[in-house]
Amino acid sequence: MPHLRTLCVYFLVALSPVMTNTTEDLDVLVFLPQNNSYLFSYERVAPAIRYAQKRLKADGGRYSGFNFNIQFENSDCLYDAFFTLADRSCGQKPDLILGPVCEYEAAAVVRLASHWNIPVISAGALATGFANKNKEYSHLTRIAPPYVKMAETFTAMFEHFSWKSALLVFEDDREQRNCYFTLEGVYHLMSNYNIESYVLTDDKPLDTDELLRSINDMEVVIMCMGAEKIREIMLAAHKRQMTTGKCIFFNVELFNSSSYGNGSWKRGDEYDNDARQAYAALNTVTLLRTVKPEFENFSLEMKMPFEKVGLHDCNDCENVNMFVEGFHDALLLYTIALHEAMKNGYSKKNGTEITSRMWNRTFEGIAGQVSIDANGDRNGDFSLMTMINVEAGTYEVVANYFGVNGTFQLLPAFNTEHFTLKGGDKDHPEKTDKSDTPC
Amino acid sequence: MPHLRTLCVYFLVALSPVMTNTTEDLDVLVFLPQNNSYLFSYERVAPAIRYAQKRLKADGGRYSGFNFNIQFENSDCLYDAFFTLADRSCGQKPDLILGPVCEYEAAAVVRLASHWNIPVISAGALATGFANKNKEYSHLTRIAPPYVKMAETFTAMFEHFSWKSALLVFEDDREQRNCYFTLEGVYHLMSNYNIESYVLTDDKPLDTDELLRSINDMEVVIMCMGAEKIREIMLAAHKRQMTTGKCIFFNVELFNSSSYGNGSWKRGDEYDNDARQAYAALNTVTLLRTVKPEFENFSLEMKMPFEKVGLHDCNDCENVNMFVEGFHDALLLYTIALHEAMKNGYSKKNGTEITSRMWNRTFEGIAGQVSIDANGDRNGDFSLMTMINVEAGTYEVVANYFGVNGTFQLLPAFNTEHFTLKGGDKDHPEKTDKSDTPC
Repeated sequence: MPHLRTLCVYFLVALSPVMTNTTEDLDVLVFLPQNNSYLFSYERVAPAIRYAQKRLKADGGRYSGFNFNIQFENSDCLYDAFFTLADRSCGQKPDLILGPVCEYEAAAVVRLASHWNIPVISAGALATGFANKNKEYSHLTRIAPPYVKMAETFTAMFEHFSWKSALLVFEDDREQRNCYFTLEGVYHLMSNYNIESYVLTDDKPLDTDELLRSINDMEVVIMCMGAEKIREIMLAAHKRQMTTGKCIFFNVELFNSSSYGNGSWKRGDEYDNDARQAYAALNTVTLLRTVKPEFENFSLEMKMPFEKVGLHDCNDCENVNMFVEGFHDALLLYTIALHEAMKNGYSKKNGTEITSRMWNRTFEGIAGQVSIDANGDRNGDFSLMTMINVEAGTYEVVANYFGVNGTFQLLPAFNTEHFTLKGGDKDHPEKTDKSDTPC
Repeated sequence: MPHLRTLCVYFLVALSPVMTNTTEDLDVLVFLPQNNSYLFSYERVAPAIRYAQKRLKADGGRYSGFNFNIQFENSDCLYDAFFTLADRSCGQKPDLILGPVCEYEAAAVVRLASHWNIPVISAGALATGFANKNKEYSHLTRIAPPYVKMAETFTAMFEHFSWKSALLVFEDDREQRNCYFTLEGVYHLMSNYNIESYVLTDDKPLDTDELLRSINDMEVVIMCMGAEKIREIMLAAHKRQMTTGKCIFFNVELFNSSSYGNGSWKRGDEYDNDARQAYAALNTVTLLRTVKPEFENFSLEMKMPFEKVGLHDCNDCENVNMFVEGFHDALLLYTIALHEAMKNGYSKKNGTEITSRMWNRTFEGIAGQVSIDANGDRNGDFSLMTMINVEAGTYEVVANYFGVNGTFQLLPAFNTEHFTLKGGDKDHPEKTDKSDTPC
């Protein structure tokens, strides 16, 4: 009997297209917005997926038996992707789904795909709810670090600096809700700390006086919102002398690299000088960017299509963002896992098996090492930037957080003083500072 | 040309099964929980649908050409119903969907059904979001009054009594979220008033002191939560002398008729006496119940299956609730609209046409007149109950609100004094009452 089983496995393996070099056709359904206003629109991301497809075909023949039939469908960040998928229950189910990015649309698609045993890889679906892979999101692999991974950077800092409390300030558009989901990650992970929230909505526009009052005794303020509002808050805080170290300000800006760092305070208006000084107290948490030689070539190739289609009003097109990079690596990861699954006798239709082989795996992505944790979510590396020259208003990365091993690495430019709480009655409980400035 | 069109219509009408008395088979997919713990579980509601089916067949032959093939599928208030529907895109799409009731599950089902042009009628899906019928919920008809219709009872009272402010106190289970959605209706409709919220969650259990403090200067407190917590709050309010008319207390209890009215304060414990007195200040908003002769027979028939299946632990089984009644009337409404549509030459597959003929229509339901507004949502009639004999602790309906014409009708037992705010600095701005009891 053991012999028979061995024999069966042998035949399965021998007959698989991977081993006999016959071809395997794979239907990939990709959901990206045709609307160019997204960082993950079709025009930006599709070239990266095609680049990966080309490389896999050429890559020494190991994966050359796989023929990817890639079909791009619109994601409108509402229901387009979901309807497209639902209409395919009649024998047209794809073997792999890439995207969507937007949270609510992704939820519906992933739920149905998981029910149909189809693997989904997205560089989005970053909200904390997707971490529950027990049932409805069982087939989702997140190729970009979810928000809760970013939040680890804050727990590492809170531990390092012995901070105890934070006010989360964010804009909630009630539609895509990126900032809501971003700081939800922090809220979720930091339940042991004293965390309060201050939410801006359409009904409740920014009132800097009220906001600064709500800071109260909070040590840390973590913000997620548009660059203009961040500037307005920092200017108001500076005016009230709240930028002198009585509390520590952060903004979280993960994707839009053009809106943070050097010159982010600058508008060419009368407030530039004040803003520059105010921003000396503003620290930014962002994705860690790595560079390796292959990435340079990839970056160059990614820029060409933008020039061709003429995305002239695109602020950030010169950068390969997390989504572009992620969807490239998604096809790579799937291929590695599928190859391994088929070598072990499983078919391309066994979504559970292929998904499980994508999890708990580290591989070389286009920009560097990609590590997927045991729950199918990418570990994240993040950078902490601060202004290092107040005269010039220039920023530098002063620390990095590495998710794979949870280390918080201080760089030479790091200045402990900058992150030390000053004054108030928090450091010195014996003193009672009853001035009317909070923090 | 007009002649030709008339002729075509004539033939269409002549050939329709309604007119020629040939049969039309109709696939109805019903989503109800097999789990008996719901007020709208299969065991409770299915007999009402079968009762309607039988009556329609026997009803003078007008609808006897319709053969309903009714298939019951499970609703687990998560994704079961949605998956069942999604698996049917291959030519097995039903002609009509009844249910689901639970909000999140209904959202997914209605979205897909609307995309597939299938009418959905539910006695649930009561949340305010479903009122947006422009796109994703275009094919939904709500046969029970949504929460925002109940909220009209409050706007009518606020207008009648010139109240200005309310604190909404509710329990949010973060799962089915019935109380959240119930008071969301109030919040949504009363945006012109001063409305604040106090939410109880698993993380934030009831702290009566804190809650009573949050009442502050609010004139009205509107509560939605379990009967035990309501009692705890009323006892605490009574102890702090807040039940003497300084603010007006309401609880909203729409479906569970056993948990309000006479004896709702009674537990057989040492607090019964205090609770009875406290409840003299507690008013309840509930569904208006009507009785007509046919309804008695229906009620009797509805009880039999419960006895058969032995729902012994069922508190409320002797009452035909809103869901049982609603799903009965749903089949009736669909039949009327379908009959009319087919008479005008439309096919059973024209979900848009059939749906539009269910809207803006008044018909005779099993318990009385049913009026569906122009947006496909049932107008609601609600009753206001108060304790009318504090010695005996007995309740009576003192006013009714009729949604179809927006009238607030006072009944003989109504006592204006009971709803008049007393004391505090609200009625008499010249006085300043600085005692530490809020309201």
